[in-house]
Amino acid sequence: MILISAEEIAKHNTYQDCWIIIYDKVYNLSKFLPEHPGGVGVILEQAGKDATLAFSTIHSQEMIHRYLPSDACLGFVDPATVAETSKVEERRREAIKNRPSLNEILHLYDFEAVASRILTTETWSFYNCAAGDEISYRDNHYAFLRIWLRPRIMRDVTHIDMSTKILGYYSSFPLYISATALGKLGHPLGEVVLTRAAHSHGIIQMIPNFASCSLDEMTIARKEGQIQFFQLYINKNRDISRKVIQKAQEKGYKALVVTVDVPSVGNREKDVRMKYTGAPPGIQNEKDLNRDQGVLTPEDAILAAEYGCDGIVLSNHGGRQLDFAPSAIEVLPNVIEGLKKSGLLGKIEVYIDGGIRRGSDIFKAIALGAKAVGIGRPLLYAMSSYGQAGVERALQILKDEFETVMRLSGTNMIADICPNMIDSKSLSNHSLTPKDYLSSNVYDRLVPLRSKL
Amino acid sequence: MILISAEEIAKHNTYQDCWIIIYDKVYNLSKFLPEHPGGVGVILEQAGKDATLAFSTIHSQEMIHRYLPSDACLGFVDPATVAETSKVEERRREAIKNRPSLNEILHLYDFEAVASRILTTETWSFYNCAAGDEISYRDNHYAFLRIWLRPRIMRDVTHIDMSTKILGYYSSFPLYISATALGKLGHPLGEVVLTRAAHSHGIIQMIPNFASCSLDEMTIARKEGQIQFFQLYINKNRDISRKVIQKAQEKGYKALVVTVDVPSVGNREKDVRMKYTGAPPGIQNEKDLNRDQGVLTPEDAILAAEYGCDGIVLSNHGGRQLDFAPSAIEVLPNVIEGLKKSGLLGKIEVYIDGGIRRGSDIFKAIALGAKAVGIGRPLLYAMSSYGQAGVERALQILKDEFETVMRLSGTNMIADICPNMIDSKSLSNHSLTPKDYLSSNVYDRLVPLRSKL
Amino acid sequence: MILISAEEIAKHNTYQDCWIIIYDKVYNLSKFLPEHPGGVGVILEQAGKDATLAFSTIHSQEMIHRYLPSDACLGFVDPATVAETSKVEERRREAIKNRPSLNEILHLYDFEAVASRILTTETWSFYNCAAGDEISYRDNHYAFLRIWLRPRIMRDVTHIDMSTKILGYYSSFPLYISATALGKLGHPLGEVVLTRAAHSHGIIQMIPNFASCSLDEMTIARKEGQIQFFQLYINKNRDISRKVIQKAQEKGYKALVVTVDVPSVGNREKDVRMKYTGAPPGIQNEKDLNRDQGVLTPEDAILAAEYGCDGIVLSNHGGRQLDFAPSAIEVLPNVIEGLKKSGLLGKIEVYIDGGIRRGSDIFKAIALGAKAVGIGRPLLYAMSSYGQAGVERALQILKDEFETVMRLSGTNMIADICPNMIDSKSLSNHSLTPKDYLSSNVYDRLVPLRSKL
Amino acid sequence: MILISAEEIAKHNTYQDCWIIIYDKVYNLSKFLPEHPGGVGVILEQAGKDATLAFSTIHSQEMIHRYLPSDACLGFVDPATVAETSKVEERRREAIKNRPSLNEILHLYDFEAVASRILTTETWSFYNCAAGDEISYRDNHYAFLRIWLRPRIMRDVTHIDMSTKILGYYSSFPLYISATALGKLGHPLGEVVLTRAAHSHGIIQMIPNFASCSLDEMTIARKEGQIQFFQLYINKNRDISRKVIQKAQEKGYKALVVTVDVPSVGNREKDVRMKYTGAPPGIQNEKDLNRDQGVLTPEDAILAAEYGCDGIVLSNHGGRQLDFAPSAIEVLPNVIEGLKKSGLLGKIEVYIDGGIRRGSDIFKAIALGAKAVGIGRPLLYAMSSYGQAGVERALQILKDEFETVMRLSGTNMIADICPNMIDSKSLSNHSLTPKDYLSSNVYDRLVPLRSKL
Repeated sequence: MILISAEEIAKHNTYQDCWIIIYDKVYNLSKFLPEHPGGVGVILEQAGKDATLAFSTIHSQEMIHRYLPSDACLGFVDPATVAETSKVEERRREAIKNRPSLNEILHLYDFEAVASRILTTETWSFYNCAAGDEISYRDNHYAFLRIWLRPRIMRDVTHIDMSTKILGYYSSFPLYISATALGKLGHPLGEVVLTRAAHSHGIIQMIPNFASCSLDEMTIARKEGQIQFFQLYINKNRDISRKVIQKAQEKGYKALVVTVDVPSVGNREKDVRMKYTGAPPGIQNEKDLNRDQGVLTPEDAILAAEYGCDGIVLSNHGGRQLDFAPSAIEVLPNVIEGLKKSGLLGKIEVYIDGGIRRGSDIFKAIALGAKAVGIGRPLLYAMSSYGQAGVERALQILKDEFETVMRLSGTNMIADICPNMIDSKSLSNHSLTPKDYLSSNVYDRLVPLRSKL
Repeated sequence: MILISAEEIAKHNTYQDCWIIIYDKVYNLSKFLPEHPGGVGVILEQAGKDATLAFSTIHSQEMIHRYLPSDACLGFVDPATVAETSKVEERRREAIKNRPSLNEILHLYDFEAVASRILTTETWSFYNCAAGDEISYRDNHYAFLRIWLRPRIMRDVTHIDMSTKILGYYSSFPLYISATALGKLGHPLGEVVLTRAAHSHGIIQMIPNFASCSLDEMTIARKEGQIQFFQLYINKNRDISRKVIQKAQEKGYKALVVTVDVPSVGNREKDVRMKYTGAPPGIQNEKDLNRDQGVLTPEDAILAAEYGCDGIVLSNHGGRQLDFAPSAIEVLPNVIEGLKKSGLLGKIEVYIDGGIRRGSDIFKAIALGAKAVGIGRPLLYAMSSYGQAGVERALQILKDEFETVMRLSGTNMIADICPNMIDSKSLSNHSLTPKDYLSSNVYDRLVPLRSKL
Repeated sequence: MILISAEEIAKHNTYQDCWIIIYDKVYNLSKFLPEHPGGVGVILEQAGKDATLAFSTIHSQEMIHRYLPSDACLGFVDPATVAETSKVEERRREAIKNRPSLNEILHLYDFEAVASRILTTETWSFYNCAAGDEISYRDNHYAFLRIWLRPRIMRDVTHIDMSTKILGYYSSFPLYISATALGKLGHPLGEVVLTRAAHSHGIIQMIPNFASCSLDEMTIARKEGQIQFFQLYINKNRDISRKVIQKAQEKGYKALVVTVDVPSVGNREKDVRMKYTGAPPGIQNEKDLNRDQGVLTPEDAILAAEYGCDGIVLSNHGGRQLDFAPSAIEVLPNVIEGLKKSGLLGKIEVYIDGGIRRGSDIFKAIALGAKAVGIGRPLLYAMSSYGQAGVERALQILKDEFETVMRLSGTNMIADICPNMIDSKSLSNHSLTPKDYLSSNVYDRLVPLRSKL
Repeated sequence: MILISAEEIAKHNTYQDCWIIIYDKVYNLSKFLPEHPGGVGVILEQAGKDATLAFSTIHSQEMIHRYLPSDACLGFVDPATVAETSKVEERRREAIKNRPSLNEILHLYDFEAVASRILTTETWSFYNCAAGDEISYRDNHYAFLRIWLRPRIMRDVTHIDMSTKILGYYSSFPLYISATALGKLGHPLGEVVLTRAAHSHGIIQMIPNFASCSLDEMTIARKEGQIQFFQLYINKNRDISRKVIQKAQEKGYKALVVTVDVPSVGNREKDVRMKYTGAPPGIQNEKDLNRDQGVLTPEDAILAAEYGCDGIVLSNHGGRQLDFAPSAIEVLPNVIEGLKKSGLLGKIEVYIDGGIRRGSDIFKAIALGAKAVGIGRPLLYAMSSYGQAGVERALQILKDEFETVMRLSGTNMIADICPNMIDSKSLSNHSLTPKDYLSSNVYDRLVPLRSKL
């Protein structure tokens, strides 16, 4: 085993002579440089340095072997010569050391709070950001606050059965893990962590088309009998799509969640603001990655049903795409009504995601006609803060909360949760609209004389 | 009289050899330990120590004699050897010493403020907590803010008669004391304090099934002619329930308030958060104690009437059970309407509790069809802060406020308070929904450039 | 002229031997003491001291001569022996010296701000207080915020005529001065200041039944041709009322504003809270003084019209009586509608008061059918801060604002201001209800983990 | 070239002997003084001083030659004798030096934030102020927050065509630059900066009747083929108006935007408050300048159509005139409905301005029936902060945002943006009314006992 000193590596930092470190191995990328699909620039920024973090956030490890000849690897970096971890990383490790114990975490907001301290500012901004004034992002949860419960009593709720079927497959309660990108920014193992937690809880995971883990990594992580769906962006070149579908089928994915391609990404200002302070190069490509768009009108739901889809997901993508797109939960009753009027209600299953933070949110969605709900960001926060144990606790909290609501509402199986169990008449009342922080911050208040006395 | 030193007692602190102090007496619990219904752990934590506080918060004194053989009592603790009061207790006594004089208390919020300083953090959290995001808890009072008055003038209101009948029994004004648990956490005499104040004001007290005082203590405290109702959780074993009912009848309780058994307790985060910092063991059993659930839909009200009940209580249990359960006052007009449509309106009396803080709240409830309202927490706060005198002043404040509203509204007897006296058209408008502190706290606001200039 | 030293006077401070100073004169009240209608206590508190402030706030000077024999006056206090002005008075004079110049006052809120610094804490609390949670008090103005304008253009508004008639008498613009009590607390001349400013602006003043000035003082202050109305509380002894009416007629008052007697005063907590810190005795009698109640329902308006009244005032008394009584402006359209349906609309004039702070508020009230609006507190603030000049500027500001709204709305005379000029469809939407400061202050927010990280 | 020392000039500071400096030249105004249309006072304040700033904010340079004989110019001020720049100017230059780089500006609020630091307090107050409580000013943007989008998917949006026609003239996207006064307060070149940026982006500029640049300056700045409209206040003397129109036609303006003359200016308190601290004299005349008023009712829109107008602008003038005038966007659907009912919809184009801050705002306006929207203040802020480059970036941001909304909504040309693309049912719900800062600031909150414990 050849050991190369960090000082030696640091000398090879030019276009003609470019070495980098990935997972402790030293690679000579001088020949590969012009062919890099992501451009020369992002690699040159890492020339002579340890590029593991930048690389791993968007590539799986197998990529190295697929693209680099074996002689590109020059040996290992001599650990004795490696500088100490950076201040940022140190602060991050400190935060992990000081995080509360997992049993002090009482609800999903706690994970978000912990993650905001543990993640780097860049990753936090990327996970947390949304489009425009983040009105849709926040209204996704606020909308649930506009729905009240109508609990029934004197019913036998000794046994609560929370299980349901999603496109015919068993789920221990009506929740699945939505497809989210760049999981490795939050945890070195990436989406695989979610795969394992999904199995522990008997729920379905939707595999993102642009996962930071490879398809193989996630397929291998899948346990016997575990169900995974595959999210797909339809490529303009249909042959490419056809191949991806064929591969997904071979790998044992049970359903295809087709995300209709949209031509631009939302304008997320937190994220952009962050980049000026020096974002890692891996994020720069994010615009090309996250391009999905969900159904948000009865008209499109009807079209989907007529095209023969087995299900649709109502989603505004966590408010990341189009600010002022309505929340899925607000759209849900209109979509159900639209399908009913068209005689299509029984022919297509309806799912929603966005803003789910409490078991009562799941209950409300089911009552309004959803078959199940998807959840994304909160699990990334749980994963980033506590790994697999965190995701499992997050799911357990939701399950417990959901069971409590079912029990106290007098429902003992999913089929009991009907529109009559809730009061949603304020759902479309947007008086409780999220605050517009930018315009109100910039407004110069009238200065009353009083303040000057 | 045998005197035992605290040092000596402290040595007997193991499973095999366990002494504790209760009410200054020293007991050897070594034999009783394995049989304790509440488990071994809670006693062992007190082994060798003074357990009076922990014991008294959930047991009545007579329990000792019922469960322990007389030779278990070894003598008295030698007062000269007892350590000084703990810091917590000292701070508490200081707070009592510094509390405002009773005539500075102007409304029920003042009692709550004082109690928050006097009670231990654990007790305050237990009394004050509610389920989930505490939306229902707060909306219980907010709902009253959505009802306005329609005062009539040019009416003779020289004489105001506030008296009414509750299930046929006289009440000086349309308010009764709701059943609340663990009164001894707030005052050494527990619920008996409320019994005495109820008599002073000529109102009815509902005796909690799981009071911290014994049934005998409360029966003895009852004055000649005073009316008490008995709250009952129906046990799955109907024989047990039958015996409790028989005993309540013998003890002279005039009505039975049957609380329908529900299988789980709400998720109260303030309370849970507190326990991690070390709650007294007595609270640990609370999940088994407080398990009631009220009627919150017209459907269930109709069922109750058809089952032959004389009255129903609309209640979401102070928001302690199911967050997003509607407030009783919001549900009230729908229930009345439902009973009217079913021809059952005159056959059953309707009561509500939750959120009552002002005399105008009582007036609004009566106007919407309630026969009377129950009040719980505010009286616990008054009791904890000033004992019986506090409870009496709290009741007097409510009475005075209620009389003022009656007079200024042009009503001189309860029967005059009809729906026409109020404007409740905004009652179901949930724009004025309580703030969601958790989600808004965790939200990272967009940072406008301005803040950086 | 006999001069008596302050030291000497201070010795006579008992029930048997009671001297006091009023307007620099020394009176022996020993004989009068038991006959004082306001009770012995309030005088004894002043025994041996200068009682001018306490006396003048509720009595006119002529009272002395009416009730005391001439030999009760013992002489003058020797100015050389009088202690310096109290600290409170010093602070007050400092505040007057430092107040902004009158032309820096841009709107009515500025007067309120200045007054809050100049008035003693007791007077400020008395003027500023309202009943209960002060919801009605604040909603009085908030209600105007729920009304929008519908300006018309392309109309000739070269000449704006703001004049109108109130019960047949000329008013330069549709505003009159409401009856308010205890003016001398704010200014040594009391209500007379308002009388003079009313004349300067050609508007009508309503003389309070319980003014701190005597009827003669106010009659004398009246200028040639100036119109005053007289506010009357109907006494249970009708003879007394008859005499008062007769006297008012003789003194030249042009209309009688009968305030229906109500049997209790609202519960004003700011004011009560203040008293514990030592209010001047004069305020103690306020409960007997301010007992008016306005019309707030269509039903009562119809009754008034049927009883032959020429006009009615819709009022909740500045929110001082009954919290949750609706604002007059919100009630106005219902009253107009009720009168219209009963065929009584042309037979009775409708006035409102409460919450008027801007010229646009006047415009909105006229558009909804009011003949004119009354204004009280803001003028007391202007008077307390700058005397007559302040009141005149306050009226000028309102006049200018009102004229601007008329002009920019395309109306050139009062008759042009019709319902079509405004959009009041949100008027009864109580989403914009004033905040409940007491209950929200006392609420212990859920503590998210984040705050602890 | 004659050089005159600043000391010498300073001596000529009287009515009889008045010299001033404009653009480094020294003028003897002694003879011209009595003839100055703006009055003697404003010039005398500058006597003996450098009046360039005061002059240039309201006059174009050519004015000097038009009004003064050539011998009035006495020579140049000797630069060596000129005092250093004032502290205010220094602070301003410092702010410009420290402003963020242009690519850190992410949205229009950022320009406003930067401008608030760079502009003098007087100019900022003048640009930023609005009438009354600034309710209309703020609701102009808030109203857009009450409109939600209804994005459609599965549509081909590869090519987005944002272009439209305004009165038959090409515009690259549906936005034009509104007429705003006193541009030179923010930038030495004034409105010409906007002319150039308008050309760069292919949009139309509306030239203000009272621009701080001369008509010639702006005509010269116009590029080949660039379209400008001319704003006109109709003068009572119709001959004057006729001449102005004729001149505008000769200068090549393509449309006339007639602003109906209104007789008074709104009451803007921020601005007035500022003047007491010493505003530059140029602003004093503003009351005479900015006197426009827009259409805000369907009635007036119908009249305009019947009078044969080709288009109307719905506008409340940025809330500067009449507080509580509704926002144009709220009025828009009613106007469209009114025109439709009158059969006039196709005969007149409808434009709106006020509150446009985001591309989504433009989209919402188009969906509700506007042909295009005008924007004013934000461009002044961009101009004041970064000159022409700033205005161009502001326009680019709006264009990009608008394109993103079109694309993500599934619309690929302006004609696709129909009412069905939005949800405006909350538009007239004024629960989300801007806060009334004056009245809420002046309100003394009830002080709960808790705060005192």
